[in-house]
Amino acid sequence: MSLFIKGGTIVTHEETYQADIVCVNNKIVEIGQQLTPPENATLIDASDKLIMPGGIDPHTHMQLPFMGTVAKDDFASGTRAALAGGTTSIIDFVIPNPQQSLLEAYQQWREWAKKAHSNYTFHVAITWWDESVAQEMETLVKQHGVNSFKHFMAYKNAIMATDDILVASFTKCLELGALPTVHAENGELVYHLQNSLMEQGITGPEAHPLSRPSSVEGEAANRAISIANTLGAPLYLVHVSTEEAVDAIRYAKDHGYTVFGEVLAGHLTVNDSVYQNPDWATAAAHVMSPPFRPKHHQDALWKGVQGGTLQTTATDHCAFCSEQKAMGKDNFTQIPNGTAGVEERMMVLWEKGVNEGKITPNEFVALTSTNTAKIFNIYPNKGCVRVGADADLVIWNPNAQKTLSAKTHQSNIEHSIFEGMTIHGIPETTICNGKLAWHQGNLIAQSGDGKYIDRPTYAPFYEALKKRQQRAKPEAVQR
Amino acid sequence: MSLFIKGGTIVTHEETYQADIVCVNNKIVEIGQQLTPPENATLIDASDKLIMPGGIDPHTHMQLPFMGTVAKDDFASGTRAALAGGTTSIIDFVIPNPQQSLLEAYQQWREWAKKAHSNYTFHVAITWWDESVAQEMETLVKQHGVNSFKHFMAYKNAIMATDDILVASFTKCLELGALPTVHAENGELVYHLQNSLMEQGITGPEAHPLSRPSSVEGEAANRAISIANTLGAPLYLVHVSTEEAVDAIRYAKDHGYTVFGEVLAGHLTVNDSVYQNPDWATAAAHVMSPPFRPKHHQDALWKGVQGGTLQTTATDHCAFCSEQKAMGKDNFTQIPNGTAGVEERMMVLWEKGVNEGKITPNEFVALTSTNTAKIFNIYPNKGCVRVGADADLVIWNPNAQKTLSAKTHQSNIEHSIFEGMTIHGIPETTICNGKLAWHQGNLIAQSGDGKYIDRPTYAPFYEALKKRQQRAKPEAVQR
Amino acid sequence: MSLFIKGGTIVTHEETYQADIVCVNNKIVEIGQQLTPPENATLIDASDKLIMPGGIDPHTHMQLPFMGTVAKDDFASGTRAALAGGTTSIIDFVIPNPQQSLLEAYQQWREWAKKAHSNYTFHVAITWWDESVAQEMETLVKQHGVNSFKHFMAYKNAIMATDDILVASFTKCLELGALPTVHAENGELVYHLQNSLMEQGITGPEAHPLSRPSSVEGEAANRAISIANTLGAPLYLVHVSTEEAVDAIRYAKDHGYTVFGEVLAGHLTVNDSVYQNPDWATAAAHVMSPPFRPKHHQDALWKGVQGGTLQTTATDHCAFCSEQKAMGKDNFTQIPNGTAGVEERMMVLWEKGVNEGKITPNEFVALTSTNTAKIFNIYPNKGCVRVGADADLVIWNPNAQKTLSAKTHQSNIEHSIFEGMTIHGIPETTICNGKLAWHQGNLIAQSGDGKYIDRPTYAPFYEALKKRQQRAKPEAVQR
Amino acid sequence: MSLFIKGGTIVTHEETYQADIVCVNNKIVEIGQQLTPPENATLIDASDKLIMPGGIDPHTHMQLPFMGTVAKDDFASGTRAALAGGTTSIIDFVIPNPQQSLLEAYQQWREWAKKAHSNYTFHVAITWWDESVAQEMETLVKQHGVNSFKHFMAYKNAIMATDDILVASFTKCLELGALPTVHAENGELVYHLQNSLMEQGITGPEAHPLSRPSSVEGEAANRAISIANTLGAPLYLVHVSTEEAVDAIRYAKDHGYTVFGEVLAGHLTVNDSVYQNPDWATAAAHVMSPPFRPKHHQDALWKGVQGGTLQTTATDHCAFCSEQKAMGKDNFTQIPNGTAGVEERMMVLWEKGVNEGKITPNEFVALTSTNTAKIFNIYPNKGCVRVGADADLVIWNPNAQKTLSAKTHQSNIEHSIFEGMTIHGIPETTICNGKLAWHQGNLIAQSGDGKYIDRPTYAPFYEALKKRQQRAKPEAVQR
Repeated sequence: MSLFIKGGTIVTHEETYQADIVCVNNKIVEIGQQLTPPENATLIDASDKLIMPGGIDPHTHMQLPFMGTVAKDDFASGTRAALAGGTTSIIDFVIPNPQQSLLEAYQQWREWAKKAHSNYTFHVAITWWDESVAQEMETLVKQHGVNSFKHFMAYKNAIMATDDILVASFTKCLELGALPTVHAENGELVYHLQNSLMEQGITGPEAHPLSRPSSVEGEAANRAISIANTLGAPLYLVHVSTEEAVDAIRYAKDHGYTVFGEVLAGHLTVNDSVYQNPDWATAAAHVMSPPFRPKHHQDALWKGVQGGTLQTTATDHCAFCSEQKAMGKDNFTQIPNGTAGVEERMMVLWEKGVNEGKITPNEFVALTSTNTAKIFNIYPNKGCVRVGADADLVIWNPNAQKTLSAKTHQSNIEHSIFEGMTIHGIPETTICNGKLAWHQGNLIAQSGDGKYIDRPTYAPFYEALKKRQQRAKPEAVQR
Repeated sequence: MSLFIKGGTIVTHEETYQADIVCVNNKIVEIGQQLTPPENATLIDASDKLIMPGGIDPHTHMQLPFMGTVAKDDFASGTRAALAGGTTSIIDFVIPNPQQSLLEAYQQWREWAKKAHSNYTFHVAITWWDESVAQEMETLVKQHGVNSFKHFMAYKNAIMATDDILVASFTKCLELGALPTVHAENGELVYHLQNSLMEQGITGPEAHPLSRPSSVEGEAANRAISIANTLGAPLYLVHVSTEEAVDAIRYAKDHGYTVFGEVLAGHLTVNDSVYQNPDWATAAAHVMSPPFRPKHHQDALWKGVQGGTLQTTATDHCAFCSEQKAMGKDNFTQIPNGTAGVEERMMVLWEKGVNEGKITPNEFVALTSTNTAKIFNIYPNKGCVRVGADADLVIWNPNAQKTLSAKTHQSNIEHSIFEGMTIHGIPETTICNGKLAWHQGNLIAQSGDGKYIDRPTYAPFYEALKKRQQRAKPEAVQR
Repeated sequence: MSLFIKGGTIVTHEETYQADIVCVNNKIVEIGQQLTPPENATLIDASDKLIMPGGIDPHTHMQLPFMGTVAKDDFASGTRAALAGGTTSIIDFVIPNPQQSLLEAYQQWREWAKKAHSNYTFHVAITWWDESVAQEMETLVKQHGVNSFKHFMAYKNAIMATDDILVASFTKCLELGALPTVHAENGELVYHLQNSLMEQGITGPEAHPLSRPSSVEGEAANRAISIANTLGAPLYLVHVSTEEAVDAIRYAKDHGYTVFGEVLAGHLTVNDSVYQNPDWATAAAHVMSPPFRPKHHQDALWKGVQGGTLQTTATDHCAFCSEQKAMGKDNFTQIPNGTAGVEERMMVLWEKGVNEGKITPNEFVALTSTNTAKIFNIYPNKGCVRVGADADLVIWNPNAQKTLSAKTHQSNIEHSIFEGMTIHGIPETTICNGKLAWHQGNLIAQSGDGKYIDRPTYAPFYEALKKRQQRAKPEAVQR
Repeated sequence: MSLFIKGGTIVTHEETYQADIVCVNNKIVEIGQQLTPPENATLIDASDKLIMPGGIDPHTHMQLPFMGTVAKDDFASGTRAALAGGTTSIIDFVIPNPQQSLLEAYQQWREWAKKAHSNYTFHVAITWWDESVAQEMETLVKQHGVNSFKHFMAYKNAIMATDDILVASFTKCLELGALPTVHAENGELVYHLQNSLMEQGITGPEAHPLSRPSSVEGEAANRAISIANTLGAPLYLVHVSTEEAVDAIRYAKDHGYTVFGEVLAGHLTVNDSVYQNPDWATAAAHVMSPPFRPKHHQDALWKGVQGGTLQTTATDHCAFCSEQKAMGKDNFTQIPNGTAGVEERMMVLWEKGVNEGKITPNEFVALTSTNTAKIFNIYPNKGCVRVGADADLVIWNPNAQKTLSAKTHQSNIEHSIFEGMTIHGIPETTICNGKLAWHQGNLIAQSGDGKYIDRPTYAPFYEALKKRQQRAKPEAVQR
């Protein structure tokens, strides 16, 4: 299986240059000027187009059982959408129930994911704690290629991780060379505000953002960072949506801590006016946590992206249809939380980021692919265009345009939070594992073509953490 | 009972000017040039001296039952020390045991305080929660002159207030027009670090600061502020000791929140090298929480004072003698936490603040007296030199000097954290309730002369909070 | 001449309480409950009303010769407007031409001001430098009650003070115990941008804000602060209009520097969309420097007010009529810079500050009167309601309302930047120098009733600066 | 000419992996496992060693005519020192006299540099302004491979660039796609303080830091950034030495500006106590501008490095011997400014950065080589270990150690600011242009082996700047 991509302009996180590319099997084997195509190679003309590493979405929830229902996009339809948008790998989440074996849950998710069109891998959530959890974390790391664990600081009475769990789990992550991640919202405050709003009779989707104001996220972000830093552990914050959380990460980085921040395409571009929509279904379609925010938070997020405070972009793709959303008709706390976006992420970032001069094309690549690969330690197999790397690529036509709509998207749901946005510059061809996977509007990949990605521990950033840990060893005073 | 203070220079938080003062009974009745003394008035010559409002220490623990013992300075000796240092009022703490009635504890403390030489009043701690606690808070506010409630975010398995308690109690405070206060340290982290250090065999006082690093305080400060702000409540942080906590308060104030910060004389001037002292008893004598900090935190605290981020100065006076400290001989977590300072507070602030050009004499008054009176809503009865105000005054001799030492202090314990510091400018005469209480080294006040201070709710800062609350009322969208 | 104000609620920068007030001649002589009016006293019923210190506007330009014309509001009409708005004192500016004697200019302005209805005093601008300027500064300070000097960092080729002048003048101010003030805009950048815009054919009022972007102010603010701080001098920044400048002042204060910031009622409430007005005259009516700003700057200014970064409010009242503005019909750089506001300042701050819960009524008093009195060292004669203070008062009716309009304002010009704003709570009666000066819509004061205010040097904040200067004395190393 | 480097561990700014390397002529031609050496290749055993891109020092002054003398290290000795320390390229400075033709000066420096052992290229300083300067900038860019221009904001009455020059030159840089750089110190303040100190009789080296306090740098940094940002130009700040300047850059980056910061190995590790040295010559040996700073600035610089605020490391190598320094025996302002360091830079950063856990080995590479290559647009020819890149490499022995001393350094002067520092991990072999240049303590390169490096304009970061410029085009309002 060979591919020959001719005449394109390669854009990496560092460079932009014109070259041909040869892929054999699932690898890039040659990059250069005026190359000769291998025999039987599929030829792709990339003249006037950009060739970039396939996108990696570090935050999706395909087929998630959540709030009494199951997300509409499973690993088949969800990864179809991913490929349509130039994304060749997703990092999804295994979320064990409290008291459930992590390994059991992990196996369940692996099973579900077998039908994926794109590549995939998993963060595993820590939703409870005892010694067996610690042991299973070790097994997951050593035998199953897991190098990151997720902690929900919200969702009281369900999967919320309290401070004692964070302390125990972060300590274990540090011991294993893994990366703890958090969903940062103060669950006690959310719970209090939800009850208070319901008592006041504010039951619609407009109550959702009121129950999760920005301070609730800022608090939790700062808390998780402080706990990680106190223990000497690194930290990754998913879906940073507020100025306060950006400030918390910035403060940490400016003090030398190893902290990473992820931002969603939705939070960068959609504001909280959506919850005032007179149509209940439309308002409810935007219910996700953290919610969309007042405009000034978007400015802060973009500044965070530009200044290096936020390094990755994701979607939290978790698709619930109108019927599912309607479960919360009389009680906003029962509206399944989630929106789609895995297809649109790169296009939205191109339009609002590159085309508006907020970021360079190289930074676009870093933000949509390379940085995620580095942080989750799968670089340079993923996240780059380089001889020896996996042949996961997207061919971008900077001169084509497209208007985003639920009518034409791949997701199984009826709403798009990006409805009506026109994109100048679109992914035209997606190559995954060295094969054409999406081309000019058509899905070519088969269900099951996606591969599981093993992720080793001790990413490069751990080098300094280990040194610091040695130097910080406490000593008794001799008396 | 009349006093005539002649020829002094009055220094308030705003002004400096020369005038005579007449006090009758417990009030200032006249201030002016060349006044005539009332008949039988006690005459005090204040030429070349400064007359300032008596100090108010908003944070003491006299006679506190804590960690299996009782603080050595009771309300008699503790307030004797206060008067010797120019402080005429203290705000002590009622600390109910979990499940104990707040009123019962309050009555107990009132009983203990009857022997006080100086004036006093009480914060009441919220160490547990149910509906009865909320009701007793209301009773304390409406019938007993309490307007502030304290929350310990540390001391897990003892008096620690978890987030759900903070949320409930802050909400109640807001409803009552009272001021919530917090001891900000993350109790889960402290607990984890204490255990970890003991396991590593680091059992001496040097482990104490390692078990409570600055990030532990910064985290909790930020959390308490975020919770208060989310609810629309004001907040007062006691004994701010770290750059991180100063930054958290500053961030809040710069965003328009109503937050106050207190700093201890000890944290401003003593650093963490004391825990390395080869003498166990000396090191242990400095064990208090939060601990003394590396030098750069002191710089940050002074900057916080200068820039208005920190408004009050206190001591956390809680005196344990060497014998008591020795309870933790083999386990630093058992060393009773506490140091003295109510006598030295104003002198230390004068020497290191005024004499070093960090603050003006007017700012000194604000920081040692006026601001506390305003925040806890007893201004202008307390905290000022003004006709109609209570006659609580200190006459300061800027030309005298004194070296601080445990040998000469009033406290019942054998160590002074300020040992050897020479002060240029000292309190020579203290007037409390219109009577000479301390004069040239002699205690004149009687045990029991001190009065309880009622503190009304709804301090002036509540005006804006109420308006904001009205404006922030959530509204349902009509659909 | 006596006044008896009955039944009002006194609001100072610190307190709110009910009391009667007696004024005799130009002084407050008694404050208390149930007072007896002096014989022949004018009686004012203040029931249900607030009595506050008369406003002090620290930044006006009455009758200013500027850009080839003279401001339409002279000291008569300008101070009439002041009194109508509750302002009893203004600090105007003597602006000598380069090479002109400061004293000569000062005498000229004193002459012009003789017709004032309200009290007044002057900052003097330093627009050039040689030894004679230094000497005249000293004469102004020692013989004429001037304690502040102004420096324009903009207006290249006219009155711009370059860094060498700032260094020399700030050094002199420090020597004299006076307060240097700056108009902070980088004149070189403004000059460059003006030329560039004109070359591009952007000649209308919309070019004005483009020629003075916020970075231009932030730069100059930071520069002036750094220069002052390097020399050990205090600094006051007039008309802070940008987030960048607020941040610069905040940074300085957080590092312990003595810096003050002033904000205009206009910058707090009017945004830059006014320059897009299709009516040239309306757009031009808003041309002032610094210009009105995008909305997020207003948020930053309010936060600056709330957090204590900005201490005073002013107007930069400098009224040019439409005919004058038309001088710049084809060249925006020729539009006389200035807007009115001395009448509306307090009302605007009440409506947008107090009524919106951003500030308390006490903070309102501090921001409109007391802080200015303190900084410019005329407190407590001005800026307070207290026995012995000057009887400059405003009686505020919190229940009355009024819609601001050029049709009804006192200024001589045809535009109001606050046109159409409805105010809930208005100044009903203004008392100046112990006499009714404005009452229920009528001017009662006479031209010439206003008095010149002497301002002594060495305001209280200088206490710490002096100590620091002594301690910072450089020493040679003995080798 | 071939080299075969066997068995080493390659460390780039992104990755660490084991591989062999083949260099032919001046290029890396093959990287891989178990490679076969080309015939006649020089074999280098790199087992247990690290192979990194050769260092690039973006800030040296070889042979500089300055302050009436000429720096002792010329291009021969200076680049010998560079190679000894693992640095294979330097960016030196052409500094025309005011009124001198830029091209003439450039040709002079090119001539001087012919004897270099390592590679080199030049920033060109803008020390005056008229239209001819703008034209020569264009010529330098288009015909001579210059893409950066330097501006000294200090050195009044000599080469200081005032704001009008900054505005003009930055505008020209933006037009050309070049990068303006600044030496940020406020020249007026320095001049004033120098005079003031001399008048006070403080004439020794201890006066040097007093004449250039940190605020002087912070001011200029902020000013240059503001000017660049106002114009839409990028900016690079050389030798950032203060917390204030780090904060200024951070503020800019956090607001989305394109700003870069350089830090010297000396400022990271040497503090201002050196100026108190009782030996005049030793104190004078440390005189450079900006001066060494109080300790807390070093902490801030390291935090700046860790958080991404500072991207490059340099030395400002400008070597003056004791005899030259003695020119300022009675007047510190006459001491030639400069210290050495080009040899020690990488070792110092390894010891204090990598070994202390402040940075990872990958970050070390970024900070010593890659980032400079990217910013000055010579990446990936320089700054990486990659097939096709220039064969400029350093082979680092992490297990060897060495104590730095003037006795053993390559520089021609008698002092080392790093005297006595022991380094654990040293450069053992330096390869420049595909040839052994330094090996185990011996210089192998010949004078003249160094090559001039052409640097193209429009580095990748310009992509976003261009977009922003288009979008910011001002528009006239139609009236």
